Amino acid sequence: MRALIWHVDEFSYWPVGRESDAAEEISEGPREFRDSIVAMVSAEVGDGPAEVEEMASEIADVAHQVGCSSVVVYPYAHLSSRLAPPQAARDSLEALEKALASRGLNVHRAPFGWTKGFQVRVKGHPLAEQLKVVEPGTGKARRRGG
Amino acid sequence: MRALIWHVDEFSYWPVGRESDAAEEISEGPREFRDSIVAMVSAEVGDGPAEVEEMASEIADVAHQVGCSSVVVYPYAHLSSRLAPPQAARDSLEALEKALASRGLNVHRAPFGWTKGFQVRVKGHPLAEQLKVVEPGTGKARRRGG
Ligand SMILES: [Mg+2]
Ligand SMILES: [Mg+2]
Repeated sequence: MRALIWHVDEFSYWPVGRESDAAEEISEGPREFRDSIVAMVSAEVGDGPAEVEEMASEIADVAHQVGCSSVVVYPYAHLSSRLAPPQAARDSLEALEKALASRGLNVHRAPFGWTKGFQVRVKGHPLAEQLKVVEPGTGKARRRGG
Repeated sequence: MRALIWHVDEFSYWPVGRESDAAEEISEGPREFRDSIVAMVSAEVGDGPAEVEEMASEIADVAHQVGCSSVVVYPYAHLSSRLAPPQAARDSLEALEKALASRGLNVHRAPFGWTKGFQVRVKGHPLAEQLKVVEPGTGKARRRGG
């Protein structure tokens, strides 16, 4: 599991079309966020509960570092060549949402399986952008990955 | 060399502080762009002229696919764990700028070695976001990498 994590002033997105059989129904609710952590997440082959929990801890650490309790989990297929199959990826992202909520964070998860546009304003401080890599099968984060 | 390539409605950035001895002087000029390709680029250990040329071809292909001749090259250390040393990375990014310009594209390169904030509005179409990976030492792009 890989996540590009941003501390943002603003983030918004708009679904434009289904791109997967595993696309979920789009729910009502906010699609614009301010002063949030945004985790752009690629679920990979071999990710399981241990990898999800480790990534939740990594994201929660960033949230605490920067003093921000609002987190957006955004499915993002563009960080890995070893993407999990769609239904498994969707399951991992839902589990990540729950794992973050159980850590007291206010979590919004963007819908899986949709082509979406997005707009973001990433803050300009040294911790505002971080890549986190949890190797599938290890449940352990690398400090800096790629 | 890795690049996360976006087709954007708008992109802007603002330098906030030096973060590297290889930081370059900030030049005058535009820092706001419309209807452009933005390449967020990590230069890696082992990248040389062949990798730079291959990445330029990949980026130029995307530009042609989406019918856009304006390209922003943005140094981005958050896509790889095998980052090139700062001066080598800066050299690769400058070479990438030249290689893109030689393909007839209108190129802006954001300054290397600065902590920057950025704002982007990524279009919502299936080709608007692509990861390109050119393995150091091969000069060959993987179709989908990570
Ligand atoms: Mg997409
Ligand atoms: Mg940075």
